[in-house]
This record gives sequence, structure tokens and C-alpha cells, in this order.
Amino acid sequence: MNERILAKDNLVLKRLFNLDTNTYMDGALDAKTKEMLGLVASMVLRCDDCIKYHLEKCFEKGTSTDEIMEIFSVANIVGGTIVIPHTRRALEYWDELIASKNI
Amino acid sequence: MNERILAKDNLVLKRLFNLDTNTYMDGALDAKTKEMLGLVASMVLRCDDCIKYHLEKCFEKGTSTDEIMEIFSVANIVGGTIVIPHTRRALEYWDELIASKNI
Amino acid sequence: MNERILAKDNLVLKRLFNLDTNTYMDGALDAKTKEMLGLVASMVLRCDDCIKYHLEKCFEKGTSTDEIMEIFSVANIVGGTIVIPHTRRALEYWDELIASKNI
Amino acid sequence: MNERILAKDNLVLKRLFNLDTNTYMDGALDAKTKEMLGLVASMVLRCDDCIKYHLEKCFEKGTSTDEIMEIFSVANIVGGTIVIPHTRRALEYWDELIASKNI
Amino acid sequence: MNERILAKDNLVLKRLFNLDTNTYMDGALDAKTKEMLGLVASMVLRCDDCIKYHLEKCFEKGTSTDEIMEIFSVANIVGGTIVIPHTRRALEYWDELIASKNI
Amino acid sequence: MNERILAKDNLVLKRLFNLDTNTYMDGALDAKTKEMLGLVASMVLRCDDCIKYHLEKCFEKGTSTDEIMEIFSVANIVGGTIVIPHTRRALEYWDELIASKNI
Repeated sequence: MNERILAKDNLVLKRLFNLDTNTYMDGALDAKTKEMLGLVASMVLRCDDCIKYHLEKCFEKGTSTDEIMEIFSVANIVGGTIVIPHTRRALEYWDELIASKNI
Repeated sequence: MNERILAKDNLVLKRLFNLDTNTYMDGALDAKTKEMLGLVASMVLRCDDCIKYHLEKCFEKGTSTDEIMEIFSVANIVGGTIVIPHTRRALEYWDELIASKNI
Repeated sequence: MNERILAKDNLVLKRLFNLDTNTYMDGALDAKTKEMLGLVASMVLRCDDCIKYHLEKCFEKGTSTDEIMEIFSVANIVGGTIVIPHTRRALEYWDELIASKNI
Repeated sequence: MNERILAKDNLVLKRLFNLDTNTYMDGALDAKTKEMLGLVASMVLRCDDCIKYHLEKCFEKGTSTDEIMEIFSVANIVGGTIVIPHTRRALEYWDELIASKNI
Repeated sequence: MNERILAKDNLVLKRLFNLDTNTYMDGALDAKTKEMLGLVASMVLRCDDCIKYHLEKCFEKGTSTDEIMEIFSVANIVGGTIVIPHTRRALEYWDELIASKNI
Repeated sequence: MNERILAKDNLVLKRLFNLDTNTYMDGALDAKTKEMLGLVASMVLRCDDCIKYHLEKCFEKGTSTDEIMEIFSVANIVGGTIVIPHTRRALEYWDELIASKNI
């Protein structure tokens, strides 16, 4: 679907998408840490699609399940119990990612 | 003021405050990383007092200014330009923290 | 799914879940009033799963449909028309709860 | 479903629904502009049902695809990348509205 | 300042203000309960001015400090630690209201 | 203060600020309409600094007080009564802008 947005050729959206990619590249902080930042931000803002995206990236960068659970705990403490339903779905997706690796 | 809340002896609030402290302790992720997670979460939720608190903790844990700027960039990309005014105040406070160290 | 989260044995999340349960127990305010508070908070924060949870609890505690509608009205006035779609789903679920009792 | 809410005869909700309709009528600003305002507000607040509603109204009022894309760009800049998933679904729905006209 | 808004004679805003007043009147739920609902909603949405307004109303309706603390605990559990700074200011204001009564 | 952020030379933030400026330029929608979109988005997200910024821009682009009041009404209906305190401050600032012109 991002292709469909890009196909409309809106310059602001194209550049924002580009910038989004640059944001998570290795810098003073490594890409893994930045993806963890993106994950916790997505959780407290309760955006399931964004959470999935950053979970995939965290998985690629070698984040462990214990680390993920600690990110979940920060998100739930800062954002409150309204984050719980998103945490459930996030863990379900994380478990799928782990399972996919073991196939 | 937290003492004033605690003085009212509400068990739920007392335990939540306690839990809040535990959340940012060294674990699978070190305390510095967790404070960075707390900072980015506070920024996208636009809570100036929370931002200040986590900036202090990040400062204590030895976060560099370049690292702080990259946390700010994640917060602004995920949360949008409404995060800019909070970023301004955050940077102003960070600069004060840095200046205080050099005295 | 909460069991799956608990199985990961993250202390902060376990305690938060525990605290969540304690929050809604009889105290200076009775459990019914607290569930109504939990419901209106979930509505303005627009968390459908949380709304369903508190509707069930309100139902168990004997909240009437007229009382539920007044909670909905507070949520919609405070939170605005973006709460309407959640109100629709909430009423649909409430009607199911009422219907289930009459079987 | 709005009928089901209205059937419960809660005066506050009835009047709010009424007021909601009045808000978008021609005035100092024309109805098309107001629907665009309703759309951008719904996007930054990330309410998919509200977005669909205002897309339909924008479509009826003759908003062009280029105009819609610029509303999307404002929403994504102000609200950040968490608006992207809603933008994807919004564009998909908009394309359906356009396609329906061409049948 | 509300007078200044009303003086501009915008029909939608006038009616919304009117409706706002009606929302908290005795009905299936009494006014005290409704003000508590308004308070918890304002807390999780983190609107200090709204919190003050509902604290005043809760005070007028005879809410006790223990009841207020339990409303605060629901707000902090549902909304997370970002509600803490607002809770501090709310308690400070509540203590002023209590003190003003004892003069 | 934006200069202070820019001085830190973070590429993502620099580009985002740049993009922000481009977003409100004349396009399929004229700059005045886009500033009105930015204003209503800032209001429902309750960012006072952002509201002031877009009020200034709306003022420069020749928006009338009646038009402003209708933007306020959309913001309050969509975002609810928690937008009222921001509306008060917005109107106060708007009146100052109008007064400054008449000197």
C-alpha cells in the first residue's frame, strides 16, 4: 500500500517516507537501539501496524525476547493499562516471528 | 509533591510509584537504554515533566548529546511536528544539564 | 493472551496486572463506581478492548442501561465525536450482554 | 448503529449528533472546506471510521485527489508516521470512492 | 474567557457549551458521580484546566479526599505514569479547596 | 529556539523542519486552506504553541474572525470539551493579532 501512496506523487509524503527510513539508520545510536525506541513510541501511541513493523526490525537486529519484554514493561508503565491489549497482540506477533525462525 | 501524594496513603498509587522505579533498573536492557526508552515515550506523549525527569536520568547514565538528538529525531518522526515545541524545551533543559556539569 | 504475557515472567508486567485488579476493588468508592470510572476513561482513550472489559464488569455490578448511556454521554462530550464509533461498538456489546442475561 | 444509540433516547447524545451535523454546514467557510477540516482532524486523531465518513463527504463536495493528498500530507507532518497506516487505509477507501463514480 | 468565546456568537460553540452543562446534571446517575466521571476522563486526557474544573465540582458535591485519591488511582492505572505530573497538580489544587473550606 | 535545535546539526530534524515549511505552500490547495488544516489539527492534538503558530499564519493569509470561529467549532466538536481551554487561549491570541493590526 505504501507504493500506492507513493504513486500519487505527493512530494511531502515521499520525502517523509524517505526521512522515516533514514531515522533508524546506525548513528550515535545503533540501529537496534533506534528500532527499540521506535517500538516503545509506537506502543504508547497504540499503533498496532507500527508496532508490528518495529517488532520485525527488532527481530532482524537480534533483539532477545527478554529485551522485548522489558520494552513492553516500559510502554505499559508509561502508557498505562490501555497499552495491555496492544501488548497482547505484540507478543503474539513476536512469538510468530520467533517461531518462523525455528522452521 | 510526590511525597504529598504518598502521604495520602493510597495503596495503588504507592505501588505504582514503586513499580515505576523498578521499571528502569538494569535487566536484560541496561538502565541507560531504558531511560532512553522512557524519554522517547514521554516525548511522543508530550509530557514535559516526564521528559525532564528522563533527561536527568539519561544525563546521569552518560548519554551523549548526539545520542539525545537521535532520540529527539525518532520522537519527532514518529509523533510529528506537534512534538517540536516539546523538543525545544527538552533541548533547552539538556543544555542546562550539560552546563551544570561544566561549572 | 494475558496468560501468555504472564508466562514470560516479567516482574513489572506481573505486578502491573496485579495492581490493575486491586484498583477496582471496593474502597472509599464501591466497585461499581470504579468500573464506571474505568469505562469512561477507556472510552475517551478509545480502547475498544478496555471498553468491553469494563462493560462486562459494569454489567456484573448491576449498572442499568440508562446509567451506561449517561456514561457514554460524558465520554462523548469530553472526548468529542471521535468517540462515536467506539460508542456504537460499546452499545452493540452492551446489548449483547443484556440479551445474554435474558436467555 | 447511530439509530440504535438514538433509540436509547439520551438527550445529550441526541443533541451532540445534531450539533455534529450542523458543524459542517455552509457558513463563513463552505461545507467542502469544513469537511476537509473534519478529515484532517480525524486523521491526526487516528479514527478510521471518522476518516471514512469525512472522505465520503469530501468526495460528495467535489474534492480532487490532489487536494486529498495534500490533506494527507498535512496530517502526516503534524501527526507523524503513526498516521501512515491510517493514510494507507484512507487512500484505499478514496480510490474505491473514485472507482465507484466511474462505473 | 468563555464569555469572550460566547460573544463571538458561533452557534455550534454556544450549543456545545450548553450541552456540556446539561451532561453533568442529575439523571440516572447523580451529579456527584458524573463529576467524578468528568474528572477521571480529564485526567487520562491530561487537561489541567478540565481537571481543576471537575475538582471544584466534585468538592461542591461533597466528594471526600479518599474518594478523590481512588479516582486518581484509576486515572494513573489506566493512563500510566504520564498522568503523575497532572495528579501532583490536581492534589495541590484539591488541598487548596479543602483548606479554603476550613477558613 | 529552533535555531538551537538546527545548530545541533541532526540531519533528520533539519529535513523534517524543512519539510514542515514545504507542507503549507500553495499547491492543489492554497496556503490559506492548508494553514486552516494545520490549525484544526493542532487544536484537536491540543498543542498551544502549534495553535499560535498557525493562527499567525492564518492571520497573514487573511482569514476572517468568523472563519476562525468555524475552525474552532470543528475542533471542539471533533475533539470534545477538552479542547475548550485551548480554544480560550487561541481566541485570546487571535484577538491580540487583530488588535495589533489596528494600531
